[in-house]
Amino acid sequence: MKPFADLTRFINPRNVAVVGASAREASQGRRLYDNLVLHSAVPGEVFAVNPAYGEIGGRPCWPSISALPEADIDVALIMINASLVLDALKQCAARGIPFAVVMTSGFSEAGEEGQRLEREIAELCRATGLHVYGPNCPGFVNVRDRLGMTFSPAFKDDLNAGAIGLATQGGGLGRNLLQGLSHGQGVGLWFSAGNEVDLEIPDFIAHMANDPQIRVIALLMEGVKNGRRLTSALELARARNKPVVVLKIGHSEAGVRAAQSHTASVAGSAAVNSAVFRQFGAIEVDDLDQLLATARLLTRITPKSGNGLCIYTFSGGTAALAADIAGGAGLPMAAFAPATKAALRKLLPDFASIDNPVDTTADILRNQQASVECLRILCADPGVGTVLFPIPMDYGAITDGMAQAIATVAAETDTLIVPVWMSRRLGGGFQLLETEGLLPFLALSDAIAVLAKAVPWKTPAVQPAPSSPPAAAAASGGRMLSEAAAKSLLREAGLPVPQGVVVANAEEAAEQAARLGFPVVMKVVSAQIAHKTEAGGVRLNIASAGAAREAHAAILDSVARRCPEAKVDGILVERMLPPGGREVLVGVHRDAAFGLVLTFGLGGIFVETIRDVAHRMIPLSRDDARALVREIEYVEILEGVRGQAPADFDALEDLIVRVSDFAWQHREVLHEMELNPVWVGAAGQGAMPLDALIGYAG
Amino acid sequence: MKPFADLTRFINPRNVAVVGASAREASQGRRLYDNLVLHSAVPGEVFAVNPAYGEIGGRPCWPSISALPEADIDVALIMINASLVLDALKQCAARGIPFAVVMTSGFSEAGEEGQRLEREIAELCRATGLHVYGPNCPGFVNVRDRLGMTFSPAFKDDLNAGAIGLATQGGGLGRNLLQGLSHGQGVGLWFSAGNEVDLEIPDFIAHMANDPQIRVIALLMEGVKNGRRLTSALELARARNKPVVVLKIGHSEAGVRAAQSHTASVAGSAAVNSAVFRQFGAIEVDDLDQLLATARLLTRITPKSGNGLCIYTFSGGTAALAADIAGGAGLPMAAFAPATKAALRKLLPDFASIDNPVDTTADILRNQQASVECLRILCADPGVGTVLFPIPMDYGAITDGMAQAIATVAAETDTLIVPVWMSRRLGGGFQLLETEGLLPFLALSDAIAVLAKAVPWKTPAVQPAPSSPPAAAAASGGRMLSEAAAKSLLREAGLPVPQGVVVANAEEAAEQAARLGFPVVMKVVSAQIAHKTEAGGVRLNIASAGAAREAHAAILDSVARRCPEAKVDGILVERMLPPGGREVLVGVHRDAAFGLVLTFGLGGIFVETIRDVAHRMIPLSRDDARALVREIEYVEILEGVRGQAPADFDALEDLIVRVSDFAWQHREVLHEMELNPVWVGAAGQGAMPLDALIGYAG
Repeated sequence: MKPFADLTRFINPRNVAVVGASAREASQGRRLYDNLVLHSAVPGEVFAVNPAYGEIGGRPCWPSISALPEADIDVALIMINASLVLDALKQCAARGIPFAVVMTSGFSEAGEEGQRLEREIAELCRATGLHVYGPNCPGFVNVRDRLGMTFSPAFKDDLNAGAIGLATQGGGLGRNLLQGLSHGQGVGLWFSAGNEVDLEIPDFIAHMANDPQIRVIALLMEGVKNGRRLTSALELARARNKPVVVLKIGHSEAGVRAAQSHTASVAGSAAVNSAVFRQFGAIEVDDLDQLLATARLLTRITPKSGNGLCIYTFSGGTAALAADIAGGAGLPMAAFAPATKAALRKLLPDFASIDNPVDTTADILRNQQASVECLRILCADPGVGTVLFPIPMDYGAITDGMAQAIATVAAETDTLIVPVWMSRRLGGGFQLLETEGLLPFLALSDAIAVLAKAVPWKTPAVQPAPSSPPAAAAASGGRMLSEAAAKSLLREAGLPVPQGVVVANAEEAAEQAARLGFPVVMKVVSAQIAHKTEAGGVRLNIASAGAAREAHAAILDSVARRCPEAKVDGILVERMLPPGGREVLVGVHRDAAFGLVLTFGLGGIFVETIRDVAHRMIPLSRDDARALVREIEYVEILEGVRGQAPADFDALEDLIVRVSDFAWQHREVLHEMELNPVWVGAAGQGAMPLDALIGYAG
Repeated sequence: MKPFADLTRFINPRNVAVVGASAREASQGRRLYDNLVLHSAVPGEVFAVNPAYGEIGGRPCWPSISALPEADIDVALIMINASLVLDALKQCAARGIPFAVVMTSGFSEAGEEGQRLEREIAELCRATGLHVYGPNCPGFVNVRDRLGMTFSPAFKDDLNAGAIGLATQGGGLGRNLLQGLSHGQGVGLWFSAGNEVDLEIPDFIAHMANDPQIRVIALLMEGVKNGRRLTSALELARARNKPVVVLKIGHSEAGVRAAQSHTASVAGSAAVNSAVFRQFGAIEVDDLDQLLATARLLTRITPKSGNGLCIYTFSGGTAALAADIAGGAGLPMAAFAPATKAALRKLLPDFASIDNPVDTTADILRNQQASVECLRILCADPGVGTVLFPIPMDYGAITDGMAQAIATVAAETDTLIVPVWMSRRLGGGFQLLETEGLLPFLALSDAIAVLAKAVPWKTPAVQPAPSSPPAAAAASGGRMLSEAAAKSLLREAGLPVPQGVVVANAEEAAEQAARLGFPVVMKVVSAQIAHKTEAGGVRLNIASAGAAREAHAAILDSVARRCPEAKVDGILVERMLPPGGREVLVGVHRDAAFGLVLTFGLGGIFVETIRDVAHRMIPLSRDDARALVREIEYVEILEGVRGQAPADFDALEDLIVRVSDFAWQHREVLHEMELNPVWVGAAGQGAMPLDALIGYAG
């Protein structure tokens, strides 16, 4: 692997040459020259090179690189026709100029001839040790040392340096980030090496990992040229404790197409890219505003930030919404120390919520000092690592004061304060937060998404409780029917149920099994046993009369040992359905707001893991059932994978409508029911509940 | 079900009474009175009621409702101590006042006494037909008719009426929406009925569904009091063709807690709520800014909007990022008509991209007229229903002009133009879009999320291609090893593989099966058959020598029929592993950027449906393997569900490291390998690949 380039002389050159400097006002060659001569602090000389001019703006101009006077030139900036670039680079190499920046377009992004030129440049680099940055790039900006090797007219306004190091491939989106970081902690170095013929993003990462003034590395990548160099550079950044945040364009097919036409580099498969970023500790984000906000937030994170999240606001609805979104993202909410609560209680009105989320109520709006006090109290709590402070409305002077309170406390605490300016009225308060460099978020969910990615939370993130399958809503004091009773109710209601009979002893079991036809399944019948399998109360695949006798004894034995208190009403013997059926769940429960709701989903092991379910209010029409079945995420399991025949959708939909009808008829008393698993055969084979629970209100 | 209330006299009252009107400046009672007297256009009289005053602001004040002069009072606004409210309501009922708005707090949200009071109010409503709005609410605002039955000091600035009808429960967040909709299409009616003792959100939805001036209904709900009334109201809105967009607070546990303490209503289960909204055609959103933007966008949607998405920008990186995010969201990209391309080609420089996404390049920045032309061309294309126009940088006057171009074309086309102002510099261009009522989005992903929800796309949304499992990356011209050859290579490399032997005839099969011990599995060995099961080349669970003989014949027969061209090298007989193992996949493929990458995931049917996989660059350490195994989403399937013992993680991790080592040793030539399924037993039972494919580069 090619070692990382030493960029010291590139970052801080003494003398530079501008090849293609122009006297023509507003030309790119002139802007580049002016950026260096007028707007940069180049310690040494800026040599203009252009055979067309004897002088530019009153300063001398030379006809070629070779013709330049004796001087230690560190970087040659090249903005001439693509066909002339190779020769200029050869002159650079011959003079021992270590770095050349080729801004000119018309290389690999433009077609075969350009690709050939690029290969020759790469060959020249290998042969001579010359380092080339570009081609097809907007240049390099060293904001902190006022050095703009770029033709961008915006460079003269890039005045806000900071601890964020930025590497991009194209130029346009980097400018967006610089505009976003024009207050507070800004961008110190901005690399943007276009086609990356020689110097690549990994070289820049490696430099920034070692640069003591850079604390956070932000990457905007359209393709990965050399994966192993990239991961080595990421490893170096991790070793140096420099967090890396990356936006990788090229996730969807459409995006990949555009990325390839744009930078002509190889867009790796999105899933692999993401896995590699995770593996090497880089934080991947999904949009440009997230890249900006995450980079900025990373410069503000302290060892305390991950202790726990506090939501603090003056509107109850906002508190609820923020807690809701934070809960959904799994952020750990801080538990307040007693001293914190006591102090808040003293300061806030009685009807304020002094628990997390804190809702001061609007009373605090009139008292800026109380805002400051409250924030100080929260920030002093050791369990509070980050305070999320949503401001839902712009109330003019009142919210200006609130913004001032945030700025005041943020400057004195090691707790991370994250303001969210939720109003579209971006008044004085917003402007103050912006110019103070606090980069207020504009939406709660944006803030929370970034906090989830950027903050190293110490408490493991609490996953939100997944919606429980209906059976988990325990029959609160109601009456549960045994499987056998439930099935006979269903049979009366016209639902298909397996052929079966409850037997009283082993001999009867053998007889009935033979009558039903082998194989059979046998299950204990007891209203006290909800989990028959766990009680040893189920035997499958019984293939002979002898086996049925044996199974009868074994079930009674297991149940007696595991559920000694259960009253056994007999053993249910049922014909087994052919193998290869798919298992689904059809359940009904009573929702507090909407009444009886039907749940359909994948059954068996899927119920507790993937929880792939969909719901609909009862009663359902046949069309509802049809839509419901297709609403689950992995409906292809029913449609058939690996050449499997599709399931019997007709029968399944019919069963769902019958369950809905049954539940609707019993709507006054039905508490819950669950058919799980429901066996669904291939088209034409039918659908049948293998187990059934029905619970009535007490 | 209680019928929906007729709100005609409530929305446009002639005479109103303010019970609790106050002479004290800045009191809520005074602000309420002033809002009606000074800032509202009440056609009739505003009667002040307060026993403490003879007059307020020079106008008469009466001691009680009963004492008011003869007049047809439509609405009584009540802002007095909670303990006095019931009596005041009784006076209202006695006088035949049809509506009362109770703003006072201290009811069900405050505890038992308040709950009792609320029950009595509800009883009074039932008995007398009085309609109560509230209690614990900020009032009602009829923006379009300048009527503020509210104590909010902000009401006098609520001047921007429009076709959006808003119903909330608490007041705070509604204010945010009004601030956001203060230009362009605004809020016409804002209901916010707090505890909803009588009038509820469904009443307001039903009114707005029938109100000809309301085109879009926006809901911000913290709880659902009466699900069936809600769904009836949603049905009515759908029948009247009024789109409904809803933000429901209370998705996560934390959110539910805050919502309950705030409005004291029942927060239904989040999954059921979402299912019901979907069932009844309401668009559910996740955050307040989405609610705002979706409501606004819905007022701008035309029958053409869903035809196809066009992305139009002047920066290649932005085009790529936008296409990427839109692709990820499954939005259908428009295909341009030939005339569109021809017209763009004439207008734009050669290096611009005139395909979708359109990248005009920065040249267009200098020419506002060209911007207008370009937009007109795109909007005229019948396949373009929506133009997403991201502006990544604020370039001062240049981007101001671009904003003007958007406003110009937006006013004349039925194509939806959606601007995204991506820069944090919110200069003149942003302000212009804002005041023109175009509500520019501030981030690409926000815009695309809303477009995905709000626009009824005609082309079914194209799902992004899921990342393929390694085997799908076909061995391009390389050499594939047969299963038997692959397994013997793995065995040599120290990997566990099932005991087995390749046999040449049925007799040998029976002998070897007996030697290995029953049950065995038998599989065809042929380099030409990649999918053995589909070819009928696999028999499982062979329990006797006779069955082995039979299976040998059956396999040869099937294979001869289904793959007549395949050369059969024998039949592999293997000892079957005990039942109850879990199936996983361990694969290796070569990524263009990162080289060999190992994929781990759930095997069997899961590979093609759930695609629950994780990746890591090779080589992997033991720690890498440990982390990788736990990175998949449904790791609980390995940890054991339903009382199942955990899988043998040790053996699995060991196997993964060995696969990685094997791949690393063969890294120069290995193209891909796939072990699928890998059988993983319970802890201590080991892990073993049941099938193996190895492909070398050609």
